[in-house]
Amino acid sequence: MGLLERLEDYTAGDMYPFHMPGHKRQGFLEKGPCAFPNPYLIDITEINGFDNLHHATGILKESMDWAAKQYGAKKTYYLVNGSTCGILSAVFATTKCGGKMLISRNCHLSVYHGIVLNRIEPEYVYPESIDSFGINGEIRAKEIEEILSENKKMADHGRDKRIEAVLLVSPTYEGIVSDIRRIAKIVHAFQIPLIVDEAHGAHLSFAPEDNFFPESALSQGADLVIQSLHKTLPSLTQTALLHVKSDRIDQNKVERYLRIFQSSSPSYLLMAGMERCIRYMVQEGRDEMIRYKGRLVHFYEKMHKLKKLKMLDGAHKDPSKLVISAQWTEGLSGEKLKDILRERFHLEAELCAPEYVLAMTSLMDTDAGFARLEEALLAIDREYVAFGKKESRKKIFSCIMPSATQVLSPARALEEEEFRIPLAEATGNISKEFVFLYPPGIPILVPGEKVSKEILSRIFSFQSAGLPLQGLSDPEFSTILAVACPDKSMIK
Amino acid sequence: MGLLERLEDYTAGDMYPFHMPGHKRQGFLEKGPCAFPNPYLIDITEINGFDNLHHATGILKESMDWAAKQYGAKKTYYLVNGSTCGILSAVFATTKCGGKMLISRNCHLSVYHGIVLNRIEPEYVYPESIDSFGINGEIRAKEIEEILSENKKMADHGRDKRIEAVLLVSPTYEGIVSDIRRIAKIVHAFQIPLIVDEAHGAHLSFAPEDNFFPESALSQGADLVIQSLHKTLPSLTQTALLHVKSDRIDQNKVERYLRIFQSSSPSYLLMAGMERCIRYMVQEGRDEMIRYKGRLVHFYEKMHKLKKLKMLDGAHKDPSKLVISAQWTEGLSGEKLKDILRERFHLEAELCAPEYVLAMTSLMDTDAGFARLEEALLAIDREYVAFGKKESRKKIFSCIMPSATQVLSPARALEEEEFRIPLAEATGNISKEFVFLYPPGIPILVPGEKVSKEILSRIFSFQSAGLPLQGLSDPEFSTILAVACPDKSMIK
Repeated sequence: MGLLERLEDYTAGDMYPFHMPGHKRQGFLEKGPCAFPNPYLIDITEINGFDNLHHATGILKESMDWAAKQYGAKKTYYLVNGSTCGILSAVFATTKCGGKMLISRNCHLSVYHGIVLNRIEPEYVYPESIDSFGINGEIRAKEIEEILSENKKMADHGRDKRIEAVLLVSPTYEGIVSDIRRIAKIVHAFQIPLIVDEAHGAHLSFAPEDNFFPESALSQGADLVIQSLHKTLPSLTQTALLHVKSDRIDQNKVERYLRIFQSSSPSYLLMAGMERCIRYMVQEGRDEMIRYKGRLVHFYEKMHKLKKLKMLDGAHKDPSKLVISAQWTEGLSGEKLKDILRERFHLEAELCAPEYVLAMTSLMDTDAGFARLEEALLAIDREYVAFGKKESRKKIFSCIMPSATQVLSPARALEEEEFRIPLAEATGNISKEFVFLYPPGIPILVPGEKVSKEILSRIFSFQSAGLPLQGLSDPEFSTILAVACPDKSMIK
Repeated sequence: MGLLERLEDYTAGDMYPFHMPGHKRQGFLEKGPCAFPNPYLIDITEINGFDNLHHATGILKESMDWAAKQYGAKKTYYLVNGSTCGILSAVFATTKCGGKMLISRNCHLSVYHGIVLNRIEPEYVYPESIDSFGINGEIRAKEIEEILSENKKMADHGRDKRIEAVLLVSPTYEGIVSDIRRIAKIVHAFQIPLIVDEAHGAHLSFAPEDNFFPESALSQGADLVIQSLHKTLPSLTQTALLHVKSDRIDQNKVERYLRIFQSSSPSYLLMAGMERCIRYMVQEGRDEMIRYKGRLVHFYEKMHKLKKLKMLDGAHKDPSKLVISAQWTEGLSGEKLKDILRERFHLEAELCAPEYVLAMTSLMDTDAGFARLEEALLAIDREYVAFGKKESRKKIFSCIMPSATQVLSPARALEEEEFRIPLAEATGNISKEFVFLYPPGIPILVPGEKVSKEILSRIFSFQSAGLPLQGLSDPEFSTILAVACPDKSMIK
């Protein structure tokens, strides 16, 4: 059976998608944002009258200009290679080769790819931690201010390169948002731009203005914002937007790099889908967001009945991401909960961590879908036993990012001579490889960082929990490439 | 009217596509390679059982392994960001940052983008010229041998960096092929890999073995081959393949860079389409290629009746590309011919050059489509008058690449201080910008090259012919950014 037939088969089943893409496969509807002709009928190239994405002057320019207006952006670009190409272009458009950038350490791999390609020396700001759930929290404005001040002092005295831009992720995969408004003010005081990876927040621009959903970075002073359309809105996978909001960003440079990191044969299918998605959101979508909010409010209310499972909720969180923790439940893990939801209830969640499941919702979710999830979670909750207080504390399996020491920049590390050592004996060496869970694709270890005991033990616990570790060239994940470093003094 | 509606409208008309994509919009057929469900029905993410393109171990790995077998490749990768990402990855996988590469000067812009990103110092081999049609011809094996020998001598004496890989385009946009078998032997004698940009030759792998179509580089000894599926086969735009043929290519490196240059949310729609395209070609496609050959033979025969228009034909050419020259016809130009075909006959061609029109065909073209083109060309041919011999010679408007002097590598040039000067006064300066016609997207001028009188006059003649020049940041195309070069001795 071919891939196409497998996909058709899967859709014919009754598996409900609590995962991306945000259109939730509602292609059976004859109207609305997923009605679409046979894709081969409308898949064209840059013929007469249909403009050219890479040098738009006609209908694509008009369409992107219209989109920019809807978002209140100076300029909006349709991306056919996902947020990935937007992130790469943002890094290149705001830094010099070999320059310095402040990034939040919980950024997606694509940010690190940009860092490697443009040979950036990254400075990291680590997220706060939400200890009770063992997950990464927000980025503190105060900390950004301290790092930028310190760098300014050093750079003023010629003892360091000047940080050229700040790049943060908000919301995170789990929906945690940072105070972009405060951060933007601080970053701008240093005369540099703030880039926000809002891949998980494309829906925020269309949310009702009552603070149920957090505010988009677009209206909080960010200079460049990247949004995945497909993650939380009814748009095809691999579609995204890059918004330029201020004059701190050189549009010509952005365009130069978008031309490099995107196919020179961009898909009209994807582009037409993007425009239609935005149009839908501007028209019916805003009302649908209100109905969607109603469904979420109802869902969280119902979840108050949970006695052992626990939902993450609070002020700095996008409620569209349902984070359901099993850490207070005996005999359950994130993985097991995800499996039960799939096998018994035919509900497919987005990802599991050691202790929790992440279910993604969008305005395309149905009442019936939410009802199935409610029922399933309440049923599971009834069947399992809570831990006593003591065991619970013992059990917490943190996903909070362990802090690492950067010895070499990632690009420098990748160029050094290498040797292969058993992962278990790697403590004290400098990694030449990434290690990350996928999803979410946030590196636990970056090339150039020292392998610490803490990081190793994190890797081993993920490994023994059977979670999807990636990044090492050794398919067995038992050895790692390290920098062959004759000058041991390099390793602090 | 939205983009989607415009596309549907266009398809509802009777415009016949003699251009990419190769599926020729045959989405109305209920069977065959373009039958497809509503794309939103099958557009999923990396859920349980559906593998992960970037770390394939399940059905995507099986599918790509199966594809590799069909192509006789060691490894085949599905590309969702077009040949572009394959080219970038090929450059990075075969060269060190700042290294040296031999490329054919008529390569697509994406090759130059790779050169810039990896800070390569390119060495160029220029194509031969087909003077009668004013187009670029094949790359001579002899010339490659000379350049590699000279480089070896210099590198052996430490006077130059060693060329690490050779990258050529074959077939070209116009269908001109080089003798890859001979070239591969020469390149391998220097212990380096040969990369072939076969974006325009994906159909060659399925052609009948009677030399009507030229042979694919895959069976001629190339080490890495990139093919656009959508250009000449029934596959969605933005789909392509990267084939690794030999151990001269480090697969791990290829994969590392494919992960960087492709979306971390690759479209299952595009992937399913690719697999289905290859399966179709392996099954019915081979027979369809025979029928397609029949249509082409018949077409070229009919074209013998042309008295003023002239078709490019010959041994080193893929006959699927119809190059129809108007250079011997009074009052006609490439542009005018393309316009007449569109306006009067509703036939949309792929591109026009000053003197010719390029019509792209594929196995998906119909008898009726070919008949319409035959009729149109014969009608036009009857209506126009041939030039006398003398005027014809005067008139030839060459597209043959003028040779340029590289003073700085493209990456170096882009970093230098710049100043803006009128294009007309730029002779003798070093360009900081690309200049190219799009399509085909082959640079006439590359950053770091000296602006010569010959190049300027070429640009101005394209300009006065109203052809689609791109690359300069000045939208008026009247000024150019040049390297502010205090040390004039740099300019030879």
